[in-house]
Amino acid sequence: MENGFFITFEGADGSGKTTQLNNIKTFLQEKGFDVVTTFEPGATKTGEKIRNILLHSEDSVADSCEMFLFLADRAQHVEMFIKPALKQGKIVLCDRHTDSTIAYQGYGRGQNVELLKKLNQIAVNGLSPDLTLLFDVSTEIAQDRVGKDKDRMEAAGIEFHKKVRNGYLELLKENPERIKLINANNSIETVYNETKDIILNLVTNKRGKTNA
Amino acid sequence: MENGFFITFEGADGSGKTTQLNNIKTFLQEKGFDVVTTFEPGATKTGEKIRNILLHSEDSVADSCEMFLFLADRAQHVEMFIKPALKQGKIVLCDRHTDSTIAYQGYGRGQNVELLKKLNQIAVNGLSPDLTLLFDVSTEIAQDRVGKDKDRMEAAGIEFHKKVRNGYLELLKENPERIKLINANNSIETVYNETKDIILNLVTNKRGKTNA
Repeated sequence: MENGFFITFEGADGSGKTTQLNNIKTFLQEKGFDVVTTFEPGATKTGEKIRNILLHSEDSVADSCEMFLFLADRAQHVEMFIKPALKQGKIVLCDRHTDSTIAYQGYGRGQNVELLKKLNQIAVNGLSPDLTLLFDVSTEIAQDRVGKDKDRMEAAGIEFHKKVRNGYLELLKENPERIKLINANNSIETVYNETKDIILNLVTNKRGKTNA
Repeated sequence: MENGFFITFEGADGSGKTTQLNNIKTFLQEKGFDVVTTFEPGATKTGEKIRNILLHSEDSVADSCEMFLFLADRAQHVEMFIKPALKQGKIVLCDRHTDSTIAYQGYGRGQNVELLKKLNQIAVNGLSPDLTLLFDVSTEIAQDRVGKDKDRMEAAGIEFHKKVRNGYLELLKENPERIKLINANNSIETVYNETKDIILNLVTNKRGKTNA
């Protein structure tokens, strides 16, 4: 059975990860790879409904309820979309995945990190990214970049975003094989070249292809 | 701080638990107690939306997603409805709760029982029923009683319902203090009298009230 590659893009809003994900998709397709892009939360039909509950609830949603809803979305996404795509040999580029939960809900909001890791494991049921790209950016630069969404970032507070960044860097220390740090303070072009090299190295070396 | 009582009603469809719950509510109210009734899943506004996802999903819902959705519903119900009612000193009568998950998803559908117990603990965050009434009924009698819904029960299969019943009896063995068995093969009146006595014993003895 041929397997694809599961690559997750992580980092703050304003880190440029989504832009890079789309550029990398185009690049890989031009190289002849079968690529799909996706995101969390809300990529499946069921996930979209879950996302709507999170965004448009009439009563306030308890933290623990929110946590289980994110996990429900992830479980559905993994079983119904990511795993089938990987079985078909596709390269799956995913905008946010398990590390976001740890960085945002765990380090950012102060929920129990070890518990969240265990729950993540249940939700992904054996799946782990072949590669995670961490687009690390200073909180100040990220804020400048998000521009019109700046209010939202400021509302959450500089301290919150610093905790999230710190959480990502902790995850990097714990998973040096899986997670690769990219200095996202640099220009889009510099970041793109670095990203491209890391991914190309993975998908060509592991597959033994020469078409790259 | 005065606390209320949290009493859960468990058992098969056709065990008569919902009828008993409503009769007990009336009885306790007539005795002057402050009583509310509720149910799982779907009692809160957010829970209703979650229930809609479970019932009317366009794509098929993965088992793990379904499990997290039930837990999300429970977490919301516990934090937003049950705990506040108990803090106000109310008696909360709840139609199905954690034991249903263990009996149906665990013993019935074959999901990991120990894992489900741990997840239940996370969802209820320290809450445990003061009393659980297990309305135990033979699968054949339950089938006769559900009448027009018989097709649905038969669709799930006699074997499934026997596994569920067995699961409930395992829970009874593990929690002899909390769970009280009621022989629900008997007439509504007999079952009612037994139920009434057990509940009255709890709410009068523990509270030291004499108005019952």
